[in-house]
Order: sequence, then structure tokens, then C-alpha cells
Amino acid sequence: MKIAILGTGAGARCHATALAGLGHDVTVGTRDPGATLARTEPDMMGTPPFAGFLADHPGLALATFADAAAAGEVVVNGIDGANAVAALTALPGPALAGKTLIDYAVPYVYQQEGDAEHPWPTPWGVMPRLATLDTDSLAEQIQRALPATKVVKAFVTQEQQTVVAPNTVGSGDHTMFVAGDHPDAKETATALLRAYGWRDILDLGSLHAARGMEMYAHFHMAVNLALGGRPFGVKIVR
Amino acid sequence: MKIAILGTGAGARCHATALAGLGHDVTVGTRDPGATLARTEPDMMGTPPFAGFLADHPGLALATFADAAAAGEVVVNGIDGANAVAALTALPGPALAGKTLIDYAVPYVYQQEGDAEHPWPTPWGVMPRLATLDTDSLAEQIQRALPATKVVKAFVTQEQQTVVAPNTVGSGDHTMFVAGDHPDAKETATALLRAYGWRDILDLGSLHAARGMEMYAHFHMAVNLALGGRPFGVKIVR
Repeated sequence: MKIAILGTGAGARCHATALAGLGHDVTVGTRDPGATLARTEPDMMGTPPFAGFLADHPGLALATFADAAAAGEVVVNGIDGANAVAALTALPGPALAGKTLIDYAVPYVYQQEGDAEHPWPTPWGVMPRLATLDTDSLAEQIQRALPATKVVKAFVTQEQQTVVAPNTVGSGDHTMFVAGDHPDAKETATALLRAYGWRDILDLGSLHAARGMEMYAHFHMAVNLALGGRPFGVKIVR
Repeated sequence: MKIAILGTGAGARCHATALAGLGHDVTVGTRDPGATLARTEPDMMGTPPFAGFLADHPGLALATFADAAAAGEVVVNGIDGANAVAALTALPGPALAGKTLIDYAVPYVYQQEGDAEHPWPTPWGVMPRLATLDTDSLAEQIQRALPATKVVKAFVTQEQQTVVAPNTVGSGDHTMFVAGDHPDAKETATALLRAYGWRDILDLGSLHAARGMEMYAHFHMAVNLALGGRPFGVKIVR
């Protein structure tokens, strides 16, 4: 299948590599391909420059957000939460219309010590806050902004390294979640997850559930800190 | 041990019954014991009147919040989230000073259809919002209001029916979480959880983690709805 991955961060690279490995035709989208390839320093998350990654993965194509999205039958949104709605709504309508868009972003707002009245300190700085939560979610904002697109929230409950390789965590018996208002789009996401190796995929219903999936980020981070960064998954035991 | 359970709701009754069954000396606290015993209708959550419950559990005592807390060596806070800080700070200082207070409340604010711009419909009404979240938590508010008390957040990640009986869910191999700023209080909570049957108890560190534990409520509710109310637990697979 032709799949677009929007974003060049560490999570996007996981999906690009895994999907290409599964035989899909993957195009990675970025705001400005020239600028992305010219970068020689790690990004704000410490991810190495994209040019080296692309050189190591010659099967992948790099294009603008618009060209990548237009080329994809399915689109994975790996644009950071703070920029996702603006970047997606700036694309030409046909690039996303009628397509499944799988969104795994967390709408983080990075904070400094002085920004927060009650800062939650971590080894890497103050815990980010969420720009959207509780009575709305980033995924719902994207869906409202793109009514012709079929948004599925998925992947967001764990690190993308383990989303694409669930069997590397414990026995591999843990749970992945999908939510959205379009059953056929959730089936597309579920098929992709099965190809990654997921055996327990729980449909959480309408896209309202994205509120819980995004807000789960703080819980995930607390567990991540407690385990000292050791990879983990979450199994719904029933 | 002498244990106070503050609150007479369904969750509080689970702990009162289980702890009495384990041989503890349990006092249940309520705002006005006379009013609690006089009630003949189910409460807003559909829980039957307390008088009948007490008649069925003659080992339990009922007292005011202040007298129950004063009698307890350990206190379990089952007062609803909206009222917890006010009710706890109204108690005489010595009733809670130096004691472990295990808090499992979610700071829910119940909403009507018209209150919410983007209501999340459920079979029982609009999903409540959270009064405190993201950059603070109810547990931290309680800890700041009661600096001489040792607050532990626990139990909150699942229904209290299964907190007190973890082996009734799946294989019983799922995870319970504790967070707090006082290691000895977390040990007290952990010992109580082991007596309930928990084998996997993860210490999430400082009380900041209560933010994630409380915000997990929306995720829990989404899973609960997806499973049609079937009991479940969450296992951290690592």
C-alpha cells in the first residue's frame, strides 16, 4: 500500500522503517525537504539529522507534507501536537479527503521551571502540560478541521519503538487501542497493527476516547520514570 | 490495625468490608451519621441506603468524619473528589496529623449535555470533566492542605470492587500503583494492597504521579465502555 508518514521525528522514523520493511511504498512528509536534508544537528528531542537516516533507508522517499499526503492511500500523522492542526489544514483538500489519517500525537506544551506553579520535575526537565484535554482532544480537533478525512487515534499509548515491534516487550501480550468515528478507517489501522505483530487490539469506540488516550500520556510518563526508561506495554486484563 | 474509611459510597463500602474481613478494626466516617442512617433512597450513583449495608456488616462502626479519622491509625479517603479538600481540612488537626491517608478520589465534575461544548455521550450521561488536572492533582491539593499528613495516591486506576479482590479479574496478574512523598506511607499502602491479594505493585514515585493516575480516569472509562462494564485490570508488561 502507499503510505504517507507526516513528520521526521523518531516516532515517524519507526513507522517509516517498519512499514517499508513490510513491503509498503512509504513517503515521508516534511515542511521543507531541503531544510530537513540540510540539517546537521540533532533536533530538540535529540534525534539525529534526517539525512543520515534516509541514507540508511534508501527505500524511503522524502517529500513536502502536501506531496507525501497526496501520494498516500493511508496517512500517519507524526507532526508534533502543537503544530498538527495548522499543518494538516494547510494541505490542499484532496491530499487528505476520503483517506484514513492515523494520529498518534500528544498535544504537549513544553514548560520551564518558572512557567509551572507546581512543576513536576523529571530527569529531563519539567513535565510538559497538554494544550487540549479533558473536554476535547487533539484528534477531535483534527477531525473537526478535516471533516472529509477519517481520523483514527492509535499508537499514542506507548513509545513508537514498541508500537512497531510489540513482541519486543515482555511476552508481546499487551494491548493496543484504536478510536474513531469511521469503522472502515479503524479496520485499516487495525490491519496495520496486526502486521506490526499486535494480537490484542481494543476498539475504544468513537473519537471521544482520544481524550483518555491522550491524557494517558502523564500516566505513561510516570510509569516510564518508575521503570527507568525500560520499554513497557499495557495489557487490559479481563 | 485501626482503619478509618471516610465516605459511605460503593467504593468505601468495598474497602470497609474487605478490611474488616482481614481482621482490621474499621470505622466508617460520614458527615452526619444520623442523616446517613436515616436515608432510605439510593444515592446519586444508585448505591443502596447505608443503614441496610451496616445491618449486614455488624462488625463495622459508623462515626463522624472527625471521630472516624481520630480513631484510625490509617485513613482511607473515599470522600468524593469535589468535596474532599474542604471536608478533610475541616477536621481537627490531630485527627489526621502524622497518619497515612490513602486517597483514591477522582476530582469529577458532573456535566449536563448543555454544559459541554463537545459532550462525550455515554449510556449514563455526559462524561464528567476533571476539576483539577494536568499541572496539579487532587492528591497534591490534599497534601498541600494537610502538610502533617502522609498522602498516598492509590486504588484510583480501577473500580474499587476489583481493587479489594484483584484475583477476580483475569488471572489476577495485573498492576496496582502507589505514589506519594512519604516512603513509609507508601509501604503501609503496599502492605494493605498485598493483603488484598495484589502481587504487582508499582511505586510511581512522588505525588506528582497522581496527575497521571487521576487523568487515567477518562482512559479507564473508555475501556470500561468498550468492555460493556466487564471488570478489568491493567498490567504493566515489561
